[in-house]
Amino acid sequence: MTKERLYLFDTTLRDGAQTAGIEFSVEDKITIANMLDQIGVDYIEGGYPGANVVDTEFFSKKRTKNATFTAFGMTKRAGRSVDNDPGLQGLLQSEAEAICFVAKAWDRQIELAMGISLDENLQSIDASVHASADTGRETIVDCEHFFDGYKSNPEYALNCAKAAFDAGARWVVLCDTNGGTMPSEIFDIVSKVKELVPGSNLGIHAHNDTEQAVANTLSAVRAGVRHVQGTLNGIGERCGNANLVSLIPTLALKEPFASTVQIGVSDVQLQDLTNTSRGFDELLNRAPARQAPYVGASAFATKAGIHASALQKDPSCYEHIEPETVGNQRNVMVSQQAGKSNLLTVLAKLGISVEKSDPRLDGLLRAVKEREARGYSYDGADASFALLARKALGQVPEYFRVDSFRTSVERRYNARGELVTMSEAVVKLEVDGEILMSVAEGNGPVNALDLAMRKDLGKYSDRIDDLELVDFKVRILNGGTGAVTRVLVESRDKSGERWFTVGVSANIIDASFEALYESVTYKLLKTEPDRG
Amino acid sequence: MTKERLYLFDTTLRDGAQTAGIEFSVEDKITIANMLDQIGVDYIEGGYPGANVVDTEFFSKKRTKNATFTAFGMTKRAGRSVDNDPGLQGLLQSEAEAICFVAKAWDRQIELAMGISLDENLQSIDASVHASADTGRETIVDCEHFFDGYKSNPEYALNCAKAAFDAGARWVVLCDTNGGTMPSEIFDIVSKVKELVPGSNLGIHAHNDTEQAVANTLSAVRAGVRHVQGTLNGIGERCGNANLVSLIPTLALKEPFASTVQIGVSDVQLQDLTNTSRGFDELLNRAPARQAPYVGASAFATKAGIHASALQKDPSCYEHIEPETVGNQRNVMVSQQAGKSNLLTVLAKLGISVEKSDPRLDGLLRAVKEREARGYSYDGADASFALLARKALGQVPEYFRVDSFRTSVERRYNARGELVTMSEAVVKLEVDGEILMSVAEGNGPVNALDLAMRKDLGKYSDRIDDLELVDFKVRILNGGTGAVTRVLVESRDKSGERWFTVGVSANIIDASFEALYESVTYKLLKTEPDRG
Repeated sequence: MTKERLYLFDTTLRDGAQTAGIEFSVEDKITIANMLDQIGVDYIEGGYPGANVVDTEFFSKKRTKNATFTAFGMTKRAGRSVDNDPGLQGLLQSEAEAICFVAKAWDRQIELAMGISLDENLQSIDASVHASADTGRETIVDCEHFFDGYKSNPEYALNCAKAAFDAGARWVVLCDTNGGTMPSEIFDIVSKVKELVPGSNLGIHAHNDTEQAVANTLSAVRAGVRHVQGTLNGIGERCGNANLVSLIPTLALKEPFASTVQIGVSDVQLQDLTNTSRGFDELLNRAPARQAPYVGASAFATKAGIHASALQKDPSCYEHIEPETVGNQRNVMVSQQAGKSNLLTVLAKLGISVEKSDPRLDGLLRAVKEREARGYSYDGADASFALLARKALGQVPEYFRVDSFRTSVERRYNARGELVTMSEAVVKLEVDGEILMSVAEGNGPVNALDLAMRKDLGKYSDRIDDLELVDFKVRILNGGTGAVTRVLVESRDKSGERWFTVGVSANIIDASFEALYESVTYKLLKTEPDRG
Repeated sequence: MTKERLYLFDTTLRDGAQTAGIEFSVEDKITIANMLDQIGVDYIEGGYPGANVVDTEFFSKKRTKNATFTAFGMTKRAGRSVDNDPGLQGLLQSEAEAICFVAKAWDRQIELAMGISLDENLQSIDASVHASADTGRETIVDCEHFFDGYKSNPEYALNCAKAAFDAGARWVVLCDTNGGTMPSEIFDIVSKVKELVPGSNLGIHAHNDTEQAVANTLSAVRAGVRHVQGTLNGIGERCGNANLVSLIPTLALKEPFASTVQIGVSDVQLQDLTNTSRGFDELLNRAPARQAPYVGASAFATKAGIHASALQKDPSCYEHIEPETVGNQRNVMVSQQAGKSNLLTVLAKLGISVEKSDPRLDGLLRAVKEREARGYSYDGADASFALLARKALGQVPEYFRVDSFRTSVERRYNARGELVTMSEAVVKLEVDGEILMSVAEGNGPVNALDLAMRKDLGKYSDRIDDLELVDFKVRILNGGTGAVTRVLVESRDKSGERWFTVGVSANIIDASFEALYESVTYKLLKTEPDRG
């Protein structure tokens, strides 16, 4: 069976730039274009040259190696010639290899919002496509509001698609601009369009306003389109565009797609999908969504005890694909719901092998449950769990003892009449019988405590030199007077390893200190000389 | 045309509790059950009584007013009688009005993971449903892995569904446990099952592993199921469950659903959807997703440009529904993107009327933008915004001045050798030229500061007697060294009013103090004698 080629058209740099809170620089665009090029998309739509400085500069050079470098712009204005339309000329003068025009296809919007006649709109499509094709460029036409247009005036919407195709457009793309169309409607309407324009020249552009952008896209593919538009991690205006990160593995791995269509992403490139998605979030300076399909940290995570034991016997019980296929990995968590088999799996990952019959396992399970009942949460605190586990198995030395600490914050007007806030901490430690006292200032009480504790750890000082506090998160577990605070600390060192520790107390400082103490202990444990 | 009733089954408290990083206390469960009850779902699945302490306590009382209070558990173990199965007995002894059993329906998993015969599994379904139905309870059977099971052995999967139905189950729920099934497969398989079990007794339980949980659910509804399972904001194991917050408005407002099925959520309840979704995120102490369909802050936001001007001419151009239908709005509340007309709307809500031409409005808009850029967020801090607005309009007296404060936390071993932590705060205030110094201890530095500040406010003391701190939430805005802390404080008084104030600083104590100070100021403002 020969598979038909399905083309991926990325619009992260154009429609994605419409996301509230996202603003790309030229440098950002270059970096993202490289990521997209490497993952194997076919078209990279880089923006709207002529419309703003960033996009004009971005299009002053070809920015892709493999993907077709595509510019976006509007069709010619009614009442102007191609030569006299500065927008269109901006597109033609750019270094784009392909041009994607957006053309209206909804009668009401043409008459109401644009104030031109339906015929003028068709002429505009025709002239624009010809102007682009005459330069030898591949031409794409996004039919804006196609589905709403079809529901309002099917004949006219079809005329728009036909006009684009007849003028020489390589692709006629049907856009669900409002994002309100259902997958079954998409299927039905695409099937109608296919009677006029072949599926091998049709594309789909879906938005996520009913949480169905991915389903709408796949529905159009089932109906026959062979060009799919979307963005990295589904960014885009309002609720976002179709998420290519979810679409790519489904198209590559799932039926009926895997055996009927062929995308340009190879198996090896597919294994880079998780990295690409998370790297893109890094660039946007936001935490990757843990629950993201295929690539999220939780996408292959199992918490429930009953599920975890089934998972060990047969991964396909709770995994719809092998996580490694997309560069992700299985993650079994420890929690109140955990059973012994969870524990054994997690322990094995930590390099600790214990017999299932070992009575110390029961003690560890009890300790986890008892502590989680008090507010600890180990599914996000791997290092604290590792310490708890090793303690239960009798393997953690007490490197140092904290005799006391004191931290204070003072706000007052200084001698120059300026309002200043000072945070200071004193920590008294015992290392091998020796008393060590340190004091430090910080930008808050926790920072001061952290600095004071790590200032002098005696003979261990060298081993924690490269320990760095990356983040700390605070969660108040119950409101009001009985409030308990849970603090999660993220640390890292030069090896690149990151680890998470947790502390719980009614007192936020106590909770923070516990998490800091565990982070240092974990670092000491991982640098034990006999651990190679 | 008569619409058929479609039932909403919420599993936020059961499958949602499988989400990595989410752990509900009994208090959380009670609060969430109230939210769900108010929005109008038909069933609230509260957990697994007998499996852990929290769920057992939650099921010691009926916790719903309108929705059917439902317990979850496994079918009877093979080789045991109903009377000798402690899991099943835990369910029967709970205060649940309905019981939802999970039963295996995939031949391979039954033989491989459970190690029992296919017949034993069918007997177990039959005996469990009878045991529940005999107590007069409505009984639901979740057929786990139904779709994978059907693809592996259609006859056996159908036998499981049939066994549940024949034994008296009100609902037979087809579960896509792995989340890997496509909407078209769901449609085809549900159509087959309908030949044996009527659609009015069938349900769907979908997971989001290919980002199609919502589409899969709607596909099953089109095929005829009349019971839909999902969670608030789509939380749940791995990539989450079907998102009820997206499903509810689609079922209520969109064709073909709006004219064929009737859900239990009224138009008025639907208008509370945005609040419910955001309130739930607050409770989870996480930022609501801006791009969330229907309810996100960006769901009806349009970035400046061609779309924005078209939107002004005709909202339906870029809005698939009217935002107010689901309690959302076209423009974000008060924020960096706000314009003057936004601001006027919010001020009117606070009972402040200003002319649009008033130059002080520009000052207020600048102040909001400047402060939000520094990390403040007024979306969730109504009282702080009211103070900022009144200050810009010159209407807030400086009731009292804080000259200085100092707070300290000390941990040490006391005379009896016990580890104790003490928190103390000193606050120096000026009221009408009089200096007032107070000191207090608390269960943490913020609590101590709060108590010290309110201990003696001179002539204002009477007016803050009934002020109570209900909750405080901490969010770290950027990780690492440039971290900024945002603290949100919730307060209330005897009148029942609750108000929220916000503080931002690199120092968590400073940020907390700012929010506390604003809460007290707001309380004084609202008790101004001339305000009646």
